Amino acid sequence: MPIEVRIPTVLRSYAAGKSTVVVSGTTLRDVFADLAGRHPELAGRVLNDKGELRRFMNIYVNENDVRYTGGLGTTLSDGDEVTILPAVAGGAVDAAPSQILDASVTAEPWLVVGDRQFRSRLIVGIEQYESPEFIRRVLEATAADVFITTLDPDNRRASVLLSDLDGEMDLDKYIWIGTTSFARTADSALLTVQILNDRYGIDIIKLDVRTPDNRPDNAATITVAEQLIRDGLTVLPFILPNPDDARRLEDIGCAAIRLMAAPVASGWGITDPEPLRTIIGRSGIPVVVEGGLATATHASEAMELGASAVLVNTALVRAADPLRMAEAMKHAINAGRLSHQAKPMPPAPR
Amino acid sequence: MPIEVRIPTVLRSYAAGKSTVVVSGTTLRDVFADLAGRHPELAGRVLNDKGELRRFMNIYVNENDVRYTGGLGTTLSDGDEVTILPAVAGGAVDAAPSQILDASVTAEPWLVVGDRQFRSRLIVGIEQYESPEFIRRVLEATAADVFITTLDPDNRRASVLLSDLDGEMDLDKYIWIGTTSFARTADSALLTVQILNDRYGIDIIKLDVRTPDNRPDNAATITVAEQLIRDGLTVLPFILPNPDDARRLEDIGCAAIRLMAAPVASGWGITDPEPLRTIIGRSGIPVVVEGGLATATHASEAMELGASAVLVNTALVRAADPLRMAEAMKHAINAGRLSHQAKPMPPAPR
Repeated sequence: MPIEVRIPTVLRSYAAGKSTVVVSGTTLRDVFADLAGRHPELAGRVLNDKGELRRFMNIYVNENDVRYTGGLGTTLSDGDEVTILPAVAGGAVDAAPSQILDASVTAEPWLVVGDRQFRSRLIVGIEQYESPEFIRRVLEATAADVFITTLDPDNRRASVLLSDLDGEMDLDKYIWIGTTSFARTADSALLTVQILNDRYGIDIIKLDVRTPDNRPDNAATITVAEQLIRDGLTVLPFILPNPDDARRLEDIGCAAIRLMAAPVASGWGITDPEPLRTIIGRSGIPVVVEGGLATATHASEAMELGASAVLVNTALVRAADPLRMAEAMKHAINAGRLSHQAKPMPPAPR
Repeated sequence: MPIEVRIPTVLRSYAAGKSTVVVSGTTLRDVFADLAGRHPELAGRVLNDKGELRRFMNIYVNENDVRYTGGLGTTLSDGDEVTILPAVAGGAVDAAPSQILDASVTAEPWLVVGDRQFRSRLIVGIEQYESPEFIRRVLEATAADVFITTLDPDNRRASVLLSDLDGEMDLDKYIWIGTTSFARTADSALLTVQILNDRYGIDIIKLDVRTPDNRPDNAATITVAEQLIRDGLTVLPFILPNPDDARRLEDIGCAAIRLMAAPVASGWGITDPEPLRTIIGRSGIPVVVEGGLATATHASEAMELGASAVLVNTALVRAADPLRMAEAMKHAINAGRLSHQAKPMPPAPR
């Protein structure tokens, strides 16, 4: 009986670019055997050498996670849809304290969630790299202590499969965070969180609900944050730096707040420090600054404003030497934090 | 016979605030014995326990250095003037390479003069501190490898006596530079250099010829630089960032050039990066950026523009915690240098 298998963006290169493949079979095992005949590389990404589902690969039959319906023995009916939904690299907060240079900057964690202590003040997105080996080097260079993963239920973006990264590095040494940064609607964000929580037990959510033009949707973000907090999750929402919205997110119980410095990937740096300064000055929870930061100087400025941490992503990816820029960012975090603590002289009147 | 002793600004607190003291004697030794009776602390600053002239204390009878006229045995005539001219702390380029955090930043010296290699890219002025012990801590915190000294022939400013610093730390481990930053005229600058060279063998000159409002006098600086280079000295002149003047100073043989980012002690940061970028882009000699830098972010920005080194002074003195700001500046130098080397992404069109 014909079964349609939906191929995620990140795996389409193994399926001759196709978004769906029609196969036949009465069980999921049959379906993958058929698929292996047509696209052996694709099947190899989903199943390991023993023919078992790989870690970080999620399979749904229609809306049901096959973990709860018999795994590869799940029986299929004509017209069923099989969806492959792999976990992918989403971005990572920064690094092992011993690799951070100034002890006073990492002496106190900037965020504590249960027994998980966030000490590194540099957060790094990793979903734009093509090679697992390079992601490992970026994470090492930035000394990340947090690893961010996501799903792409809308099939909008490609990213490296965690199942590939898993063989390259020890992912379990990181604090895991799930991100919804690939989501462009509240529903898509909620679905992403639900799967990450259900499948991997991820309970700290880097919440991004963005408009189609890739800016934070403050109103939708607040709505989703309220829902997630009711569900018992720890939420780190990303918003345009509106002081009222920031206050609201703190009031409903967010663990930290993330403010946009400039449009994501713009490289403009901090276009207006005043709202950031205002929110940081009033906030009772840690404030992360991100978006549009391209240089070490931008990161230093954010920390000097009093940010608890900085998230960079495209700044590394698009630098001529990403690993050297990672080193630069580590120094910038220390420089800005220490300068903030030292309280600079006031500028002379102009 | 009455002899007038001129007391420099920095020693007047030991002479009841007086700028001159009239004593009597037929030799310089007599004069200091008389002075010791009136102002014992003052005499103790000039002579050591054995009654010898301290290191870094220069004594002139009329226009003559007493080293060439018989020392303390120099005979005096009625109406002679005795001038005390001590060497004082002037500022210091930054620190021992091992204390700098990123090896790639100090792997190559940014300036070589004979066998003297300038590796630290942070230059720190030290003349605004009151305590020798604190100066030692600032130099250690900034990891300086260069020590800057000066004289104040015009008695315009106070600074710590090198004879006091000498007991606090090992000054001989530094590369010594003389500065004319207390000079407000070309003649005063030339006199300072002449004494520093004659008395201490200092042949690297941080040349500052400033207008009465404390800005670089580019034209006078070029004139003095030409004179000093003819005299065989190594010259590091400070100018407003005028590309033609920068080119001229390179052409006449300056070893490096120092550009003003903003008025000295203003804390404004880099008010206009474009002329700095232009001069750095064209220059065949190292470019130092200084003046008005108050924060780690300012220093990072200067290095990111491609400066070879940064000089800070008031930024540390007037920070609430100068030693922490010194640490911040070290990280900022590394951050900006590495970011420059990594070549940041270009900003998106606005």
